Amino acid sequence: MTMFKPFLSDNAAAVHPRVWEAMRNADEPDNPYDGDALSAQLDARFTALFGRECAGLWVATGTAANCLALATMCAPHGGVVCHTEAHIEVDEGGAPGFFLHGAKLIHADGEGAKLASQGIAAAIDPIRNDVHQVQPQAIAITQASEYGRAYGPEELAALAAFAKERRLGLHMDGARFANAAAYLGGSPEEAARGASGQVDSLAFGFIKNGGMGAEAVVLFDPERAMEVRYRRKRAGHLQCKGRYLAAQILAMLDEGLWLANAAHANAAAREVAVGCADRLLHPVEANELFVRLSEAERAALRAQDFAFYDWGSDSARFVTAWNTRAEDAQALGKAIAAL
Amino acid sequence: MTMFKPFLSDNAAAVHPRVWEAMRNADEPDNPYDGDALSAQLDARFTALFGRECAGLWVATGTAANCLALATMCAPHGGVVCHTEAHIEVDEGGAPGFFLHGAKLIHADGEGAKLASQGIAAAIDPIRNDVHQVQPQAIAITQASEYGRAYGPEELAALAAFAKERRLGLHMDGARFANAAAYLGGSPEEAARGASGQVDSLAFGFIKNGGMGAEAVVLFDPERAMEVRYRRKRAGHLQCKGRYLAAQILAMLDEGLWLANAAHANAAAREVAVGCADRLLHPVEANELFVRLSEAERAALRAQDFAFYDWGSDSARFVTAWNTRAEDAQALGKAIAAL
Amino acid sequence: MTMFKPFLSDNAAAVHPRVWEAMRNADEPDNPYDGDALSAQLDARFTALFGRECAGLWVATGTAANCLALATMCAPHGGVVCHTEAHIEVDEGGAPGFFLHGAKLIHADGEGAKLASQGIAAAIDPIRNDVHQVQPQAIAITQASEYGRAYGPEELAALAAFAKERRLGLHMDGARFANAAAYLGGSPEEAARGASGQVDSLAFGFIKNGGMGAEAVVLFDPERAMEVRYRRKRAGHLQCKGRYLAAQILAMLDEGLWLANAAHANAAAREVAVGCADRLLHPVEANELFVRLSEAERAALRAQDFAFYDWGSDSARFVTAWNTRAEDAQALGKAIAAL
Amino acid sequence: MTMFKPFLSDNAAAVHPRVWEAMRNADEPDNPYDGDALSAQLDARFTALFGRECAGLWVATGTAANCLALATMCAPHGGVVCHTEAHIEVDEGGAPGFFLHGAKLIHADGEGAKLASQGIAAAIDPIRNDVHQVQPQAIAITQASEYGRAYGPEELAALAAFAKERRLGLHMDGARFANAAAYLGGSPEEAARGASGQVDSLAFGFIKNGGMGAEAVVLFDPERAMEVRYRRKRAGHLQCKGRYLAAQILAMLDEGLWLANAAHANAAAREVAVGCADRLLHPVEANELFVRLSEAERAALRAQDFAFYDWGSDSARFVTAWNTRAEDAQALGKAIAAL
Repeated sequence: MTMFKPFLSDNAAAVHPRVWEAMRNADEPDNPYDGDALSAQLDARFTALFGRECAGLWVATGTAANCLALATMCAPHGGVVCHTEAHIEVDEGGAPGFFLHGAKLIHADGEGAKLASQGIAAAIDPIRNDVHQVQPQAIAITQASEYGRAYGPEELAALAAFAKERRLGLHMDGARFANAAAYLGGSPEEAARGASGQVDSLAFGFIKNGGMGAEAVVLFDPERAMEVRYRRKRAGHLQCKGRYLAAQILAMLDEGLWLANAAHANAAAREVAVGCADRLLHPVEANELFVRLSEAERAALRAQDFAFYDWGSDSARFVTAWNTRAEDAQALGKAIAAL
Repeated sequence: MTMFKPFLSDNAAAVHPRVWEAMRNADEPDNPYDGDALSAQLDARFTALFGRECAGLWVATGTAANCLALATMCAPHGGVVCHTEAHIEVDEGGAPGFFLHGAKLIHADGEGAKLASQGIAAAIDPIRNDVHQVQPQAIAITQASEYGRAYGPEELAALAAFAKERRLGLHMDGARFANAAAYLGGSPEEAARGASGQVDSLAFGFIKNGGMGAEAVVLFDPERAMEVRYRRKRAGHLQCKGRYLAAQILAMLDEGLWLANAAHANAAAREVAVGCADRLLHPVEANELFVRLSEAERAALRAQDFAFYDWGSDSARFVTAWNTRAEDAQALGKAIAAL
Repeated sequence: MTMFKPFLSDNAAAVHPRVWEAMRNADEPDNPYDGDALSAQLDARFTALFGRECAGLWVATGTAANCLALATMCAPHGGVVCHTEAHIEVDEGGAPGFFLHGAKLIHADGEGAKLASQGIAAAIDPIRNDVHQVQPQAIAITQASEYGRAYGPEELAALAAFAKERRLGLHMDGARFANAAAYLGGSPEEAARGASGQVDSLAFGFIKNGGMGAEAVVLFDPERAMEVRYRRKRAGHLQCKGRYLAAQILAMLDEGLWLANAAHANAAAREVAVGCADRLLHPVEANELFVRLSEAERAALRAQDFAFYDWGSDSARFVTAWNTRAEDAQALGKAIAAL
Repeated sequence: MTMFKPFLSDNAAAVHPRVWEAMRNADEPDNPYDGDALSAQLDARFTALFGRECAGLWVATGTAANCLALATMCAPHGGVVCHTEAHIEVDEGGAPGFFLHGAKLIHADGEGAKLASQGIAAAIDPIRNDVHQVQPQAIAITQASEYGRAYGPEELAALAAFAKERRLGLHMDGARFANAAAYLGGSPEEAARGASGQVDSLAFGFIKNGGMGAEAVVLFDPERAMEVRYRRKRAGHLQCKGRYLAAQILAMLDEGLWLANAAHANAAAREVAVGCADRLLHPVEANELFVRLSEAERAALRAQDFAFYDWGSDSARFVTAWNTRAEDAQALGKAIAAL
């Protein structure tokens, strides 16, 4: 193992061979934008997967997918409740402020970067119902969460009920949705439905899971789809050779590739976890590990050619991917255990 | 020739084999976003091509490329002068309004969808210099224009001088920049420099010319590049596997592929033009033909399996591409001549 | 008459004594913002005046009134059809772009700066129903128009029917609504209803008509009122001593002061018109006159201490106000006749 | 004392007689907008007061004043550091998001709702200098703070040095600037200079201090003034009878009325404070008192006709104004002491 960096992130992993193949097969000319035969299949494919009518639109990034969906739920003068450590709050360069025209992100807390009704209520109940304060209009959760935690069906049901009661939209950032679905288990349909519950929209991530540059905005209220189509164009996200994006997504959906890839990544993470014992800051449910490691320990691992990001001053984050080799995962687990 | 649609648009053409090859070669993991080795080459490559210092950033669409560049030149309370028929005015779904936060497009006129200082002055001189009227801050031109017309070096020099005199930024929408450059001629460097003149920024199009999903924002004031990088992220246009976009652009720049592809398309357009005689609404300088054709004539062509868009009620638009076959172009020219 | 400038504009005229009195009477402390007893009367007062349920909100400028109303009708990715010479297009510093988050103003033409269904259809029928073009969502008309022309009840009915058929909102910029209403005639209720027809919202102007700094946003769909209240606060237009604005509006509504003031101004304009004969560029229906006058003629008038704005190179605009003295109007008419 | 509500807020107090008088004197027609003789005096008057060149622009609300100033310092993709309890964060209905086009408010903490460099550094030092995180571009402080605390000259000097070192703009929300200045003491010039230090801009509040509807945006970099003038128009805040706003501000500046009014209010607050002893949550430096009072105690005070807002569940906020009667303040102090 020389200069191999397998645990930095899943977001830079290679593209899966079946995705490559599907892209090559899309080379034949077709109508531009989303007028091609492949893009036309997306609504039906996602509807079949989730078991309820929905629209599926490709877009090049999760940032855009999240923001386009949220913009249908929250007016410029409204607010979106998200976890204090949510990606849309911390790491998207202010994109929600751009796409939602200055709407506010309202911070709520919860263990493992997950939200529950109590945490949300604690954040929004003090908001006076007057024009001087920004009123919440939507909730955004991340599946799996920023700490690699999965929401189970009961948690999602409770959140959906809470959102409905409070008349708030419910959006799911699914950059690693597949990993959460694989954790929850079942067939592709069972896993997809269980992991999404009754959210109003989902940014279904494929890029970290073997895709190249295509995520899906899945809208369970198809009436919103048209608005998203206009907003996608307006945001410069309507690619003229959209068939190559549709091809990526369809390849991932074919025969449950999305779920198999995620299951592989999750398994590799569990291999690593074996060696982490009580160093783990969070239970490993998806493909991320947050491990307490001193600066010296991290240096020791890097000296063994393991690549990863520091996480604060006394920890590290390791991420596995669809193509992480089992031997590398085992080697990392052992190396940590041996520290 | 059955059901072949070669003249609808260049924006849905297949991807060039050398672009495919470069993308495949990018499969090896590297740093995410634009931290990879390929993205790191762009500034230097464009600087070498244009012969003056610039920054080159990939982005997935021309819409985004244009708007990100314009946003550095025009405040939300300012205006961008563009041709009444400019793509940013007519066909980008209001994207400039989004990216420029409500800045105004100020319409100017000019023959062949080209602007000259007189037309611009006619549009902006009546604007009172007071807060009640939106003040122009930039000019956007399209090379080649929406009617396939190229700006020559003298025209560009005059525009740059005018822009400087009026303290206006000057941006070039180069969705078909390569076709204009091929028309103007010379080596890749000569063609690129001649066709860009002294603009402040250029949206350098590759997608219509054999690429898949990568255009370049070229900023001749590198100080603006950092702002564009922040805005690109904020607009959801910072793809995590950016190396695949950089690979496309580098492949197009290698050995002047961008210019060769455009020259091929232009030549095909000239083949078609041979048969159009005085039916042409505009001189054919790039890869688009606007041809006066009655409804019956258009039907007759379509019966021969030629595909193209109507242009108004008595004309049609034909577009050639990097992969248009000479025999198809000749056949179309003859078919029109035979009408 | 020395250094008197009575015909420059109505927008800088003195405040009417009854408005002053009402403001002074509002001096007693009350709840801040719009929680005071005076603001609380507005909905009912406007509902009584217009004979259909509506909400009435004070705001400091017509610019804000128009934009706040339009923002409820048109999404950021939509468009508002207005006359090419409409104030919101020409003279509001790009405010619609700000309040509507980059929505587009779609230009339509019509005689006297008035719109009719044909002109609007001519502007919007060519818009393809696809995401590449901004779709119209609302129409904005001005009553009286920028050339002092009034829409009659039949014209308004036709516009409302057209808007409904096309599913477009219909907003009225009523900076000089009172002058149009006075022209159409009748009791305050009859005049208000006749001049507003079935618009969805009205920016009811008081400032040019004897007020100081209060216009009303009148929303005939009261459901929209709450949105406007939030947007008003967000735009910094919720004044804490709002009772002084409500007082102005209530004073104007009391005993039809708004209509009487406008009738006075209109009568003064007619006095001037007597002397203008065929110099008039537009029929005089409200309180503005557009008069063909050479540069020398304008100089001659100014030498007689008449103040007014040039209108292009060969005309002038004269505006009368609630406090224009009859002798001044007659003197101006005679002076023009004597040229 | 019957139904008198003197301690609810200063934001609904009556208008000072000298302000009324100045407004009445402005009734004579003059040029519209800010072209009148009174508005023309503002720059010079503020320059004289602050002892350094600045521009002074009237605007109707503090919300608008703060946001217009901040918009000159912070790009849409940037961030403004403010206290977690700052008015712009908590109580302006998301106005900064609107005026700054989605820029982010970055929360910092500090005692008494005041910021110091340590608190700001704690908030911004963890921000990675990359495009994924919103970069701070400005700091906003409130003088007096949301808890009625004044920044002294040394604190302001330290903040200005910190801002300069970090290349951040420094804005002061001065809704109660006069009260802070009165606390710091000296002549009007000394107090104004001491209380503003070297901020880049100041929203100088007059409305809570005897004005009706005019605050001033004071810009110590006059180059920014032109931008604010454009933005003010665009935000619908350029009133056509601006002379009435200028008149208010000039009346407040004349003979230091602004300082005298604030000194009166502060003195009244101190009278109340006498009775509060260790119930005070914050030192009383301006005209607000935050007093620990049980629900029963608050009820007892209200039974004596004192009006005030609850502050959380176990406290109350009392605000004095320019016209608070000494006997009322003493009565309140005694009533609290007697609880």
